[in-house]
Amino acid sequence: MAWASLNFRSASLKMPVEAEVLIPQPGYKDLKQEENYKVIILLHGANNDRMEWLLKSQIMDMTRQLPVLVFMPSGKNSFYINTYNNYRYKDYIAEEIPQFLRTHFRVSPKKEDWLLAGESMGGYGAAVCGLSHPDTFGNVAVFSGALVPKDIEKDLPGIRMSNIFGKNLEYGERLENDPFQLAASVPAKQRPRMFVCCGEEDFLFDVNRKFYEQIKEAYDTTAFWGIGGHEFVYWNERLKDMFKWFCPAELEHGVFMGRPGNDIR
Amino acid sequence: MAWASLNFRSASLKMPVEAEVLIPQPGYKDLKQEENYKVIILLHGANNDRMEWLLKSQIMDMTRQLPVLVFMPSGKNSFYINTYNNYRYKDYIAEEIPQFLRTHFRVSPKKEDWLLAGESMGGYGAAVCGLSHPDTFGNVAVFSGALVPKDIEKDLPGIRMSNIFGKNLEYGERLENDPFQLAASVPAKQRPRMFVCCGEEDFLFDVNRKFYEQIKEAYDTTAFWGIGGHEFVYWNERLKDMFKWFCPAELEHGVFMGRPGNDIR
Amino acid sequence: MAWASLNFRSASLKMPVEAEVLIPQPGYKDLKQEENYKVIILLHGANNDRMEWLLKSQIMDMTRQLPVLVFMPSGKNSFYINTYNNYRYKDYIAEEIPQFLRTHFRVSPKKEDWLLAGESMGGYGAAVCGLSHPDTFGNVAVFSGALVPKDIEKDLPGIRMSNIFGKNLEYGERLENDPFQLAASVPAKQRPRMFVCCGEEDFLFDVNRKFYEQIKEAYDTTAFWGIGGHEFVYWNERLKDMFKWFCPAELEHGVFMGRPGNDIR
Amino acid sequence: MAWASLNFRSASLKMPVEAEVLIPQPGYKDLKQEENYKVIILLHGANNDRMEWLLKSQIMDMTRQLPVLVFMPSGKNSFYINTYNNYRYKDYIAEEIPQFLRTHFRVSPKKEDWLLAGESMGGYGAAVCGLSHPDTFGNVAVFSGALVPKDIEKDLPGIRMSNIFGKNLEYGERLENDPFQLAASVPAKQRPRMFVCCGEEDFLFDVNRKFYEQIKEAYDTTAFWGIGGHEFVYWNERLKDMFKWFCPAELEHGVFMGRPGNDIR
Repeated sequence: MAWASLNFRSASLKMPVEAEVLIPQPGYKDLKQEENYKVIILLHGANNDRMEWLLKSQIMDMTRQLPVLVFMPSGKNSFYINTYNNYRYKDYIAEEIPQFLRTHFRVSPKKEDWLLAGESMGGYGAAVCGLSHPDTFGNVAVFSGALVPKDIEKDLPGIRMSNIFGKNLEYGERLENDPFQLAASVPAKQRPRMFVCCGEEDFLFDVNRKFYEQIKEAYDTTAFWGIGGHEFVYWNERLKDMFKWFCPAELEHGVFMGRPGNDIR
Repeated sequence: MAWASLNFRSASLKMPVEAEVLIPQPGYKDLKQEENYKVIILLHGANNDRMEWLLKSQIMDMTRQLPVLVFMPSGKNSFYINTYNNYRYKDYIAEEIPQFLRTHFRVSPKKEDWLLAGESMGGYGAAVCGLSHPDTFGNVAVFSGALVPKDIEKDLPGIRMSNIFGKNLEYGERLENDPFQLAASVPAKQRPRMFVCCGEEDFLFDVNRKFYEQIKEAYDTTAFWGIGGHEFVYWNERLKDMFKWFCPAELEHGVFMGRPGNDIR
Repeated sequence: MAWASLNFRSASLKMPVEAEVLIPQPGYKDLKQEENYKVIILLHGANNDRMEWLLKSQIMDMTRQLPVLVFMPSGKNSFYINTYNNYRYKDYIAEEIPQFLRTHFRVSPKKEDWLLAGESMGGYGAAVCGLSHPDTFGNVAVFSGALVPKDIEKDLPGIRMSNIFGKNLEYGERLENDPFQLAASVPAKQRPRMFVCCGEEDFLFDVNRKFYEQIKEAYDTTAFWGIGGHEFVYWNERLKDMFKWFCPAELEHGVFMGRPGNDIR
Repeated sequence: MAWASLNFRSASLKMPVEAEVLIPQPGYKDLKQEENYKVIILLHGANNDRMEWLLKSQIMDMTRQLPVLVFMPSGKNSFYINTYNNYRYKDYIAEEIPQFLRTHFRVSPKKEDWLLAGESMGGYGAAVCGLSHPDTFGNVAVFSGALVPKDIEKDLPGIRMSNIFGKNLEYGERLENDPFQLAASVPAKQRPRMFVCCGEEDFLFDVNRKFYEQIKEAYDTTAFWGIGGHEFVYWNERLKDMFKWFCPAELEHGVFMGRPGNDIR
């Protein structure tokens, strides 16, 4: 696998941006050269950055032998929407990055091979951006999503939420920024496969459960609950479930190969 | 905590080198500004590099609230000795880096506050460099050390061992490159505290056990065995034990604080 | 010299930040170990980031043999003030970074040894932050400063200036954000040494000239004009002048030593 | 343009390697999306690394608006050959990297669109690797090449040349490591276009001149001499000439567009 730290100009955000990318390395182990890779865009949580998943999960070990490209952007504390104060993060995540990947890398053109995923603020972002662009993302994974940002304003004292969602946060209640309304709005034939998980000790358990209840009939939905808090100890276990859900065929006999933890990238 | 990716000229190696450093951030949480930090120099295994511990262990989470500076150099496949073909890695690890840290950072001058640790090839390096410089390193930790490199030549087909240890690897049998002879040679008053661990399924179990048997009386030695292979699944558990052994007072009531896994660095 | 890419949590900005630092390497060439380094904080221009000076100037070559630490933060498009929408960049630049440097590095405690400098938006930031904190910065260098941001709003179509300066940009006219008022407000005994430069073809020539006319009597001011545009071709020449002005004694016989361009860092 | 810092496993070198890549950004300015980029592999000099050209030349500015991908590997002090002590750098540079680029990026399949270039030790590497693989590299550029490494052993006291070239450096006199013999050995129809330059004050002037005299008739050769030493002050001027030689059509009216030095990457 190749790991690239990218620095480029975002046309949507009109500034330099940085991202981490894990690129399958054909010829190493069992990867075939002619393959078009699957794609995962992986969103971090509030007060963190593009390095979060690399440092806190085993994402690098897990994808080492899979034909999957993983792209991890920085979302600052934008909640990944086109913010009230006009930073166009949704456009960046759901339009510019896919275009960038299709241009530069050997990625699959089929939406079934694309997954947008994230944790907490990133889970909200995955739901909002994914459900707004169902023709790009055939799969959406929400890890303990902050699905109603208004409810957690008090938990994020360092973030001026009105910059993102407007005074009184009414901007967050619009269709384009509300996962519940968005989920209801996607035409049946376009609906992505959904993966939802949240630990029972997580302060976001109820809202994730509520979201699941809304979508479980209409969408092809896979959910995981169980013991766990708002932390990577829980999400790392679910990440394995996510890979089994997103690329069962690529996993050998359904399990990760090799000796995770002690092989070279 | 601050994380620095360093690039500087090594006088010992006569080339540019790179290293990762985790620096305690006084003022954040409970760190006191006037403190001199403890130091851990952490060595990676064969066929890997300075990013290994950051990517495969929770070292960043574990030290976030500790007054401990962690320095992770790249050792290429040098086994961290002054090699037969004249790359002076031992001088770099055990002399130049400590001098560099004493010069640039607010580190403790006391050897009791310094620890040299590593896994596999890095465990061998920790033993060799640490026991050669007991006035610098008051603590040495060996995780599944490749303590007799000659025995594992067949396991490392990609490494031309004769560059490092000479034809027939006889250079590895000299006092200065042999952990067993070195351990026997350190005067009683200078002996560092030793931490040794190896899982029972590890192909290096026997040699680590043998090393332990040799030193357990003469050295202040702490050892961990138990189920486990040659991999980070095992080493990550031992890493927690290592912190309890190296900085029990700094851990609050002997345990890691906070929510490891979901706080910001 | 050591080059560190830093990643840490900013208490002022309440998010992870990144910065580049050039650290003198004692023992290499003529640097003395016991020295406390001078400090330059170097600010980039609009639509750029912390890598700008490293990539576009010879700053690394110029400081290789000087006992000067150079810190290059990212300012996004904040103009380095405490913005209208509440990102506290001025606090970050003028309070948190100096505190960070005093804590972690061997820097001089004397304000005479500290310089805040920048180009364009960064020149404005240097003037505003420096003149607001004259007890920290004994020296301020303005390269083609965007000293009246309101005047260049049309030149920066990608930046929503009202986020930074408020609707109608009236927030930029307050004392704390206006270099002209700030310069008039600093008590005589506290005034920093000033370095001002701007090329004659630069669209900011007039405003820099006007600033110079205001301060030239009251401040110890050094100015450079001459042929040149709003670009590094000009600023690189002035950067040499800045070093002669800021550390004449450290330059050997007043000139840069060695073979700039082909030595190792 | 996107700038990627790459980290991947080299099969030739059997270890993790790092490289810097500048990737054209279609859609930005005049780049067309359907284009296959030209490729430049750019080799650094002795005692330096993959960042050298980025930090010491204007390569980033120069290629910002060109459909050219630039790949800058680290060659340590290997002289880019398959060394006597068995590090297979030539295979890495001339086989593995081209294969890596063809696999991952949208690069031209035509050798006319590929250029291997370098300065000093990198100039030797460009000549040796390029002339050994004329079906891959249709263009080779030598900046002040260390074309007879034996002659400069005394100038590189930090490098144990016998590791690379064997005792008495006789390994450097073999056909596969000698630019002069290699140049004589390439069949007429396969010969790459050659670019050679060296300043008159450079201690390598004579050997570069001699190389030029040997190849000037048989090869399509472009040469630059003139005042200059062994340094980037000279090479930066020649770099502009190299671009005019390698991509005249892509330069607008033969000159670099825009405002080099003050635009965003």
